Amino acid sequence: MTETHELLTAAVRRLIDATIRTEVEADAIAAATDKIEAATAHLSDALIPGSFGVQATPDGRPIALGNVVIGQRNPVAPPLTINHSPDGTVHTDFVLGAAYEGPPGHVHGGVCALILDHVLGATAHQPGKPAVTGTLTLRYVRGTRLGQHLRAQAQVSRIEGTKTFAAGSITDADGVTVEAEGIFIHPRGTPQS
Amino acid sequence: MTETHELLTAAVRRLIDATIRTEVEADAIAAATDKIEAATAHLSDALIPGSFGVQATPDGRPIALGNVVIGQRNPVAPPLTINHSPDGTVHTDFVLGAAYEGPPGHVHGGVCALILDHVLGATAHQPGKPAVTGTLTLRYVRGTRLGQHLRAQAQVSRIEGTKTFAAGSITDADGVTVEAEGIFIHPRGTPQS
Repeated sequence: MTETHELLTAAVRRLIDATIRTEVEADAIAAATDKIEAATAHLSDALIPGSFGVQATPDGRPIALGNVVIGQRNPVAPPLTINHSPDGTVHTDFVLGAAYEGPPGHVHGGVCALILDHVLGATAHQPGKPAVTGTLTLRYVRGTRLGQHLRAQAQVSRIEGTKTFAAGSITDADGVTVEAEGIFIHPRGTPQS
Repeated sequence: MTETHELLTAAVRRLIDATIRTEVEADAIAAATDKIEAATAHLSDALIPGSFGVQATPDGRPIALGNVVIGQRNPVAPPLTINHSPDGTVHTDFVLGAAYEGPPGHVHGGVCALILDHVLGATAHQPGKPAVTGTLTLRYVRGTRLGQHLRAQAQVSRIEGTKTFAAGSITDADGVTVEAEGIFIHPRGTPQS
């Protein structure tokens, strides 16, 4: 991931926010659209077929830059940085803006599910041996507000063969907003999450 | 939602895809970034504070243009169009591209959760009386591929007081990929999903 590409992705994230929130007149919207289409044309001179997938870095590590949760190339991703502690717990700190809205002023419940799926799954991931979601159960305690400092965390409850049982939550300054538990599997076949 | 703004949002969706998939050199990326920043500056001359929320259309209907699943102004939203049948079932047809990737070539399991949360919740929504998610349980049957025609559908299982019990699934041409059930609540207080 080059710094130039990071600046591009950050610029697209700001554009997404402005696209939702703008109140300018139609002629200004049309002028902005022209510039965006010119930028897309530049970038489309050479495209990876399909999707980014997982590629190797210059030093050989697998990296998922297109991932919708953690992908540093994906403007849809916040992107989350997943921190692994020596005791096996996982956490990530983040703030979500207008692009993740469900009820007015609040994070969409399904975005909470998306983040918890990824963070709980991260407890089971091992280098070169990703885990996929088997089941995931979410309990919504109260609304999660946009624009607030949030933390998602998870830990392994137990491991049975290829299955990792994990639990976690999203918290804000006042405590838990969403709780989750799930079963994550190291598959032999097609990956899933 | 004006046609001009629809064209803007569609252009930003194409830009998101190109940002993930581009293989052009650094100078072309930098040139594209400059154009994007100029577009964002245009749009930011007047911004709604915070997030879009729910606003009234000229004829008085409430509309959530910024919603991360259905919002026609939100470039992160596919956006889904939710179809309500007279028998109470709900469905939506869609294709997801590179921006929604989890495992290589596959929809992120958490994106399936996001969509199912919204579609199951839609069975309980009533005009001016939105429902929020209480609990949601997902069972991943197999991977959901990017670039394929998908359908999400849901129906009410039963209603108990303020609680709607709903069930649904995502299917591709070969059948079910993810199943879900959930409880959705018409709240008195803060909304949630």
